[in-house]
Amino acid sequence: MQKSNIPYGMGSQSVKLPAPVYIRQSASIVGSKEKEGPLGTMFDFASEDDLFGKELWEEAESELQRRAIIKAIDKAGLLPKDMRYIFAGDLLGQSMASSFAAVDFDIPLFGLFGACSTCGEALSLGALTVSGGFADYVVCATSSHFASAEKEFRFPLEYGGQRPQTAGRTCTASGAFVLSSCADGSPRAKITGFTTGKIVDYGIRDSFNMGCAMAPAAMSVIETHLKDFGRKPTDYDAIVTGDLGNVGSRALCDLLLEKDIDITGVHKDCGSLIYDCKEQDVGAGGSGCGCSASVFSAYILTMLEKGSFSRVLFVPTGALLSKTSYNEGNNVPGIAHAVVVENV
Amino acid sequence: MQKSNIPYGMGSQSVKLPAPVYIRQSASIVGSKEKEGPLGTMFDFASEDDLFGKELWEEAESELQRRAIIKAIDKAGLLPKDMRYIFAGDLLGQSMASSFAAVDFDIPLFGLFGACSTCGEALSLGALTVSGGFADYVVCATSSHFASAEKEFRFPLEYGGQRPQTAGRTCTASGAFVLSSCADGSPRAKITGFTTGKIVDYGIRDSFNMGCAMAPAAMSVIETHLKDFGRKPTDYDAIVTGDLGNVGSRALCDLLLEKDIDITGVHKDCGSLIYDCKEQDVGAGGSGCGCSASVFSAYILTMLEKGSFSRVLFVPTGALLSKTSYNEGNNVPGIAHAVVVENV
Repeated sequence: MQKSNIPYGMGSQSVKLPAPVYIRQSASIVGSKEKEGPLGTMFDFASEDDLFGKELWEEAESELQRRAIIKAIDKAGLLPKDMRYIFAGDLLGQSMASSFAAVDFDIPLFGLFGACSTCGEALSLGALTVSGGFADYVVCATSSHFASAEKEFRFPLEYGGQRPQTAGRTCTASGAFVLSSCADGSPRAKITGFTTGKIVDYGIRDSFNMGCAMAPAAMSVIETHLKDFGRKPTDYDAIVTGDLGNVGSRALCDLLLEKDIDITGVHKDCGSLIYDCKEQDVGAGGSGCGCSASVFSAYILTMLEKGSFSRVLFVPTGALLSKTSYNEGNNVPGIAHAVVVENV
Repeated sequence: MQKSNIPYGMGSQSVKLPAPVYIRQSASIVGSKEKEGPLGTMFDFASEDDLFGKELWEEAESELQRRAIIKAIDKAGLLPKDMRYIFAGDLLGQSMASSFAAVDFDIPLFGLFGACSTCGEALSLGALTVSGGFADYVVCATSSHFASAEKEFRFPLEYGGQRPQTAGRTCTASGAFVLSSCADGSPRAKITGFTTGKIVDYGIRDSFNMGCAMAPAAMSVIETHLKDFGRKPTDYDAIVTGDLGNVGSRALCDLLLEKDIDITGVHKDCGSLIYDCKEQDVGAGGSGCGCSASVFSAYILTMLEKGSFSRVLFVPTGALLSKTSYNEGNNVPGIAHAVVVENV
């Protein structure tokens, strides 16, 4: 393993935690389309009502995230006042879903923006905070909502906009994770390190092909992670990207093969897992912050808990664009954060 | 001082760093209106051209932030590759200014969203990361731009929108800070602790009175900070809020007086410092992420360096709203982060 000259730094971009940080508990809340998908019965709650009892899509997304946070804390046998910090963000302009979700919790908030990579960013910063002795419990949360994202980035649903098959479908989903410095409470898994991504821009401008916009960033962080830790793909039972979807996943594997790194035997993608892409008419697969977060909670952590997986590299992937940047003809760069998660 | 049971926790919401984290260097870049203000000659660079040589306002803001980062790193006698992480965010939807500023730096990025409190959030997370042994040098940066903010939150400039006197004026400004674990390189000041804010919602809906929307959050974090550290206002040479402006500052002082906390002798506000409010037709004063960051770099750190101040509480303040949340009639909650900065 390549050490750096920073006490807990590893190589050029990574951290190896001096002691594990435990994912004590987690929760996943999803909407109706996700309920019908292959993982439908694995989520903590899957709603028939995509408004979650609210009148506006943005309020629905806040409610979605709020319920995930409440559920995760409750499953952990703790109370909101036990949480030292919330680390949270979402796709909406000015992270409005997370801000309004957090209003009622009375927990100090670090607001994040990493697009669909937010779950990886939140887990990294949460782990760093707990590991450094600055908190005993923190909660990391993120969400996305199909309808609020369509309104944010494209058009309101009433417009009836069409999408090509390379496009993903933003998931209505949220995931929340309670991190702890100690192994009490039968934690689901443990975080042992992470690699923080850089922005990678391959000049993609097609906002209907986010998988390919993000694949270079995923390639970059996976390559760097393996180098920093002196590992190979088969040292992991799974390398799980957030939402490259079917098209972006092929691009990622090809990009890594060009560097003699073969992840095809261990690669999975949350966007390809959350939907049955053939049956559910979802283009290339699921996308959005909530896609990676909910699948990680419902499926990946379950596999780790059971012992089916021993070590996973979780790589949420984000595409950096706004309505404005897209309309002004900018590229869509990507960013990805890789988190090493192992069974307890 | 009230200890918590977390190694470096203090009271309910604070951190007392086990050893100081140094602000090795910093830089402030501003636009034409700020150049004409009382601090005009103190900024590292003040441009006559608010487009900074670009064609679009958003590109101008990215350039503004990029220049601040480059300048801060250069003044520190370091190179971009020496920075382990960037912590950055801005006001635009999906933090586009920061994302495009960071593209060329090839530094791992933690994207943040805290509205105009982002500088405090970035300094807190940066300090925590360095203190915990996860980085030797990090750069914390934020920006705002009058024209890109008008377009983001209200209307493009061509609309000729009018503003009441309670409204602030978003500053065209950026501040960047290089944090270090060691005292080499003649650091400007040191961070010794911080208090992380919670979202505080007093039901304000007037987006033209952001000072009053944010004042409750500032009140909350200042009150908590003083309690957590067992200090009183006069233990600080200055308690400096980010951008409450003249109206919000009066609200803050009144709110704290109701709690028998009198900060009137030590309170300053970056939004009231950056402009001559009477001469420059800027309503209640300056606002925006770049307001607090640039004034902190140009003025507050200079006062600390000279020894005119020994200890300052720096409290950037944010108002959480988007075009969508405002148009949908939501409240405008606030958040503020307090950072203890002392001379070396």
